[in-house]
Amino acid sequence: MPKPNVTMQEIADRLGVSLKSVSLAVNGAGRLSQKTRERILQAAREMGYRPNFAARSLVTRRSCLIGVLLPYSNSSFFGDIMTGIEKKAHEHGFMLLLGNPSGGREELRSQILRFAERGVDGVAVYPSGAIREVTDELCSLGVPIVQVMNRLPELGRAAVMVDNEEAGRCAARHLLAVGHSRAGMLTHDRGGEEIAARRRGFAAGLGREIPCEECAIGIDAGYAAARKLLAAHPELTALFAASDLAALGALKAGLELGRRVPREFAVIGFDNLDVAGQQLIYPLTTLAQPKERIGELAGSMLINLLEGRDAGPVILEAPLIIRSTTAVSADRQ
Amino acid sequence: MPKPNVTMQEIADRLGVSLKSVSLAVNGAGRLSQKTRERILQAAREMGYRPNFAARSLVTRRSCLIGVLLPYSNSSFFGDIMTGIEKKAHEHGFMLLLGNPSGGREELRSQILRFAERGVDGVAVYPSGAIREVTDELCSLGVPIVQVMNRLPELGRAAVMVDNEEAGRCAARHLLAVGHSRAGMLTHDRGGEEIAARRRGFAAGLGREIPCEECAIGIDAGYAAARKLLAAHPELTALFAASDLAALGALKAGLELGRRVPREFAVIGFDNLDVAGQQLIYPLTTLAQPKERIGELAGSMLINLLEGRDAGPVILEAPLIIRSTTAVSADRQ
Repeated sequence: MPKPNVTMQEIADRLGVSLKSVSLAVNGAGRLSQKTRERILQAAREMGYRPNFAARSLVTRRSCLIGVLLPYSNSSFFGDIMTGIEKKAHEHGFMLLLGNPSGGREELRSQILRFAERGVDGVAVYPSGAIREVTDELCSLGVPIVQVMNRLPELGRAAVMVDNEEAGRCAARHLLAVGHSRAGMLTHDRGGEEIAARRRGFAAGLGREIPCEECAIGIDAGYAAARKLLAAHPELTALFAASDLAALGALKAGLELGRRVPREFAVIGFDNLDVAGQQLIYPLTTLAQPKERIGELAGSMLINLLEGRDAGPVILEAPLIIRSTTAVSADRQ
Repeated sequence: MPKPNVTMQEIADRLGVSLKSVSLAVNGAGRLSQKTRERILQAAREMGYRPNFAARSLVTRRSCLIGVLLPYSNSSFFGDIMTGIEKKAHEHGFMLLLGNPSGGREELRSQILRFAERGVDGVAVYPSGAIREVTDELCSLGVPIVQVMNRLPELGRAAVMVDNEEAGRCAARHLLAVGHSRAGMLTHDRGGEEIAARRRGFAAGLGREIPCEECAIGIDAGYAAARKLLAAHPELTALFAASDLAALGALKAGLELGRRVPREFAVIGFDNLDVAGQQLIYPLTTLAQPKERIGELAGSMLINLLEGRDAGPVILEAPLIIRSTTAVSADRQ
């Protein structure tokens, strides 16, 4: 059971300091020597002091909570983005309230209602397919929204993402440089503008129309799509996939067809998930999303918006990570 | 900018229902037909109603927040556990406040102070090495604590984890069954009781002393430790590693030494990370942690404690997932 709450006055009395000093120390604000601050915080801890955030929130009308709607499960990807957001949030006295965007429209509406109930001051969101159906509800929260990885115009201008079109061009340039001009692409069946941009850049970089096949994000789905694409276009010697998992499926398909990797069959993924670099035999060439950096910039952007400053989209480069599936020197066969 | 707040009375007036009905609908409590509840919630959304949780919290002296101290970054592992906790939390009107336990002792103390400041009602924590140094601070929060994956006695009895000793015995039984009786183990250099238990079980299952080498959780660390262990004990034909990443390093070492996998060299990991099952050429045999289940049970346990019921440790089975690194039928060489 929680102890009965100790007041700031009791802490001040015990240490013989002013109530104002205790308030400054506890709220992490104002001028106070490091030594005094630490002495007060130490006493506050020992006495079991718990600042009453609810009371403070009633006065400031701020919850100092940022709601995050990122699919953090099943991949380390969004965990890294959350780490970046959290870092910036903590620097400014905000904390992250976790929302899980899995599930359908009704679950998302409940989630957004929970955010409303807690009075979140802002939201960081990955605008996935399901989110597209609740943009009205998100906007009706009436708080700043920052999007990561992609941008839906309905949710405003504030977004942090990579230059997907340039990333596509970069994949094409690299394939041409290692001697693969006949390349196809695996796109996402539920992808948005970010996937379309990658495809545009890839086709522009190769200077030709490219055979494409849609698939879900997953090794099995990528495998099936690659088999289909390679059956229809046996002349292809390279595939660029819009996700690392689909790329691994494509790699599996190529190996099963007896293609030597990367001489006869090259593969490039997207995202740089752990599983791309941690393949023991065929570590995967991929375009990296600078995840923690995306998170930090999204966090800073939200703080800016909360302080009344404008924020437009920030576009980062997706660096090419060259590994065994395109680099001839790493050829294993 | 947020709209000026709409009151429950205004919603009641517009719909011609009682204030009490609006309160019941908004607070998700009491008897109310599904239809009425939905009609009120719909109007609440349209009118931009934001329940004032801060005011409610002052009355109930509950924040309905659960602080989570799990290293969710760099692995999907803890994200899956969080998903389970969140599911149970939402069912009971609680939300998760994110804390990042990376960093040293001082950062953890700040993190715990942030939890105190928000008046979290309970904490879910993975008691890693760094957490051991702040058990006093955690306990001084004066709220229920549930541990996942391991248990420090200083943090109480409430914990959800797998039977690590039995998991070690299971690894030994499987290796004996596929003809590998001369086995060694890679342990964690910063592991706690959970690693010691796996080792005890493994040695007991094999019925002999086992050569061991400590290493960090990582492919390179596992590789170096395995090379060292196999140089000192060339008679070993199998390694059981306390993490999947160390196991992958061990696999790499065995392959480099020209051992045929799994006939001449078998490897078993622990955790069943994505990267274990998603190895294209050598998917890894491992002992799975039932992650989301661990999370759900931890969430339920916290709710029980908050409602004044006692909760002791819950021990789950870690299922053996047999893949190519021990199953002869999947032998690639």
